[in-house]
Amino acid sequence: MERLDQQMRFISEIDQLKSVLRQTRLASADPGPGPGPGPGPGPGPGPGGRGRRENSAEHSWHLAMMAVVLAEHAPDGTDIGRVTAMVLLHDLVEIDAGDLFLYADDAQQARQEAAERTAADRIFALLPQDQAASLRRLWDEFEERRTPEARFARGLDRLQPMLANLKAGGGTWQEHGITADQVLAKVELIEDGSPSLGRYARNLVANAVAAGLLAPAAGGAGPGEGTR
Amino acid sequence: MERLDQQMRFISEIDQLKSVLRQTRLASADPGPGPGPGPGPGPGPGPGGRGRRENSAEHSWHLAMMAVVLAEHAPDGTDIGRVTAMVLLHDLVEIDAGDLFLYADDAQQARQEAAERTAADRIFALLPQDQAASLRRLWDEFEERRTPEARFARGLDRLQPMLANLKAGGGTWQEHGITADQVLAKVELIEDGSPSLGRYARNLVANAVAAGLLAPAAGGAGPGEGTR
Repeated sequence: MERLDQQMRFISEIDQLKSVLRQTRLASADPGPGPGPGPGPGPGPGPGGRGRRENSAEHSWHLAMMAVVLAEHAPDGTDIGRVTAMVLLHDLVEIDAGDLFLYADDAQQARQEAAERTAADRIFALLPQDQAASLRRLWDEFEERRTPEARFARGLDRLQPMLANLKAGGGTWQEHGITADQVLAKVELIEDGSPSLGRYARNLVANAVAAGLLAPAAGGAGPGEGTR
Repeated sequence: MERLDQQMRFISEIDQLKSVLRQTRLASADPGPGPGPGPGPGPGPGPGGRGRRENSAEHSWHLAMMAVVLAEHAPDGTDIGRVTAMVLLHDLVEIDAGDLFLYADDAQQARQEAAERTAADRIFALLPQDQAASLRRLWDEFEERRTPEARFARGLDRLQPMLANLKAGGGTWQEHGITADQVLAKVELIEDGSPSLGRYARNLVANAVAAGLLAPAAGGAGPGEGTR
C-alpha cells in the first residue's frame, strides 16, 4: 500500500493550489454593484473588472480544456496528451512559491524562478520515485520551452489571461496600467507556440485598444484613445 | 476565422464553471475561527469543515490530476488521455443545470439528468460541428459508464469528495448527516472502475468511522461512536 499512500499524499497536498490566487479576475462571479457582465467582451463590469480573483487550480483546468479544444492549432505531430498533462501541473510549484504577476520586473522573476525550483524539488518528491521523476521532467519541459508541446502549452498560458481581461472589460491591463506594447511582447510567445493563435491574439490586442479597454503604447500614438 | 471564433466562444462560455459551487468544502482555504487545518486528516477545522465551498472547475482539475497520478490503477489498456479529457469536461453541463448533491433523492436525480442533457445540447453546440459531436460523445460515454475509461473516470469522481471530507474532518458527511452505509454504496462505483482504488476507499471509510468523522450505519452497530 506504500506506493498508493504516497500517491494519495500528493493528491491531498495539491488541493492547496485552489487557494493560490492570481491577479486575473473572473468576469462573471461576484460582479458587485454596477451592470452585470453581458455576453461577449462588451463594456462588462467596468474598469478593472469586479469579479473575484481566479485561483491557479481553475486556471489550470481552463488551460487543459483549451489544449483539448485548440489542439488543431498546434504544429503537426504535437502530442496533445502531454500538453494537457503539462498545463495541469505547471502551476503546482505556486503552492510554495505563490503566483507572480506576468509583468513583474526581472529581479522579481529571477527570485520567483529560484523559489519555484525549490518548490518543485519538494512537491514532486511526495510521489513514488519513478512518478516524481517523470512529472518533474514534464514541469522542466514546460519551463525550458524547447519542445513543440512546451511551446504550445506556454502559448496557451499567455493567451488565457488575455481572454479573461477582454471579458472583464480591461481587467489587470487597467488595474496595473499595462499598455498594448507590453501585451504584444507577450504575444510573441503565443506565436512561437502556434502561428494561428498568435494571429488571433494580435487581433485581440488591436480590438481591445480600439474598444478603449487597453491603452496603446505609453507615449506612442495608438489607434484608440487609451485613457478609458 | 469562423471556426476559431466558435472555439473561442466555447472557451469563454465555460469560464462560468468556476462559479458553480459544490457541496464539498476545502479543508485549507478560509478556515474561519477555531484551529487551523493541520497536515493530513487529523482533527482538522472541526465538524463540517469551515473552508469555502469547492467549485466545479477546480474539482475537475483535481480529477484530471488524479487520472494522471493514479493511471496505473486503471485496468490494463485503459486510455488515460481519454479519461483525462472526460473528467475535464464532465461537469460543463452544470453551467446551466447546477451541481446536485451526491446523496439527493431519486426524483431530484431524474430532474437533474434531464436538465443536464438539455445543457449538453446547448453548450457543446457552441463548438464547430465535428468537435461538438466528439466532445458530446465523450460526455455521453462518461454518463453511460460502459467503457473502462468511463468507469475509471466515474470512480475518481466518487473518490475525490471522500478524500476532501476526510481532510476537512468530516465535511459534507457531517453537514448532511450521511452515514457509512450510504458512503459504502458509492464505493461500489469506485470498485467497478478500479479494484485497488475501491479497496483504498473501503479502508478510508472504516478509518473515518473509527476516527469519529463518519457515523456508522443509521441504527446499526458500527465500530465507532458515530455521534461526534
